[in-house]
Amino acid sequence: MSTDEKTNAPMSLALSEAEAAAGRGEVPVGAAIVSADGEILAKAGNRIMELKDPTAHAEVLAIRAAAERLGSERLIDCDLYVTLEPCAMCAGAISFARIRRLYYGAEDPKGGAVDHGPRFFRQPTCHHAPDVYGGLSEDPASQLLKRFFAARRS
Amino acid sequence: MSTDEKTNAPMSLALSEAEAAAGRGEVPVGAAIVSADGEILAKAGNRIMELKDPTAHAEVLAIRAAAERLGSERLIDCDLYVTLEPCAMCAGAISFARIRRLYYGAEDPKGGAVDHGPRFFRQPTCHHAPDVYGGLSEDPASQLLKRFFAARRS
Repeated sequence: MSTDEKTNAPMSLALSEAEAAAGRGEVPVGAAIVSADGEILAKAGNRIMELKDPTAHAEVLAIRAAAERLGSERLIDCDLYVTLEPCAMCAGAISFARIRRLYYGAEDPKGGAVDHGPRFFRQPTCHHAPDVYGGLSEDPASQLLKRFFAARRS
Repeated sequence: MSTDEKTNAPMSLALSEAEAAAGRGEVPVGAAIVSADGEILAKAGNRIMELKDPTAHAEVLAIRAAAERLGSERLIDCDLYVTLEPCAMCAGAISFARIRRLYYGAEDPKGGAVDHGPRFFRQPTCHHAPDVYGGLSEDPASQLLKRFFAARRS
């Protein structure tokens, strides 16, 4: 398998989770977590409205599920794929979970906290920062969001 | 009841939750959420180690419990009391939950995200900021933390 394929399979899963979230009326964001040996440990989409839980972002749900599966609050050597640049809450969770690499799709200038706003991973108060790769599958990820918000406005 | 008593009763609960967390071997941080009419909606202490969940900070657990109780992902007109300055993850959760007022005890120069590091509520990417009151019951809150970390080192 080429490096591209390894990178894109989990992001495809994250995109499917984002699509499923849109079908539930949630902002379409999806995430997947992969272990060092390539196993999918968890995948999730936003469930904020469904669960009536303001913390039920795709990343938080995936991190909690992967931690439960591994029986550890630290996801050592695990990578997280998410369709949208994480917010401050999720960036904090990613740091506490010790995620190794973060791959994200669309940038989020309005609410992102990785390459916008607080740029959390670059703060001296951030004690673990993953390697960050933005723009992976950016087009389908941002198209999903654009269609969702356009349909909401109409 | 005086304003002081109204303010201090929930913080006393938060301090009790922090003490209970220390008894479980968790970093002693506790939180309580109060509705506009003074009802305690939720209280929680850290349960990161116990639940093997990197997101199980006192504030996140209390917010999730209060949201479940109200059947809403938004805790309109609710106030959050916490013994330690919230981190970026918790500050994000507080913002999403639309907490009205945040009262915190001890400052956290190393990991806080309210008055240190990202100062999340002052970022243009933060779409709801609570009124913030730091230093409430600062002494007992910081003493709890100091005793906990001193005992760990010895």
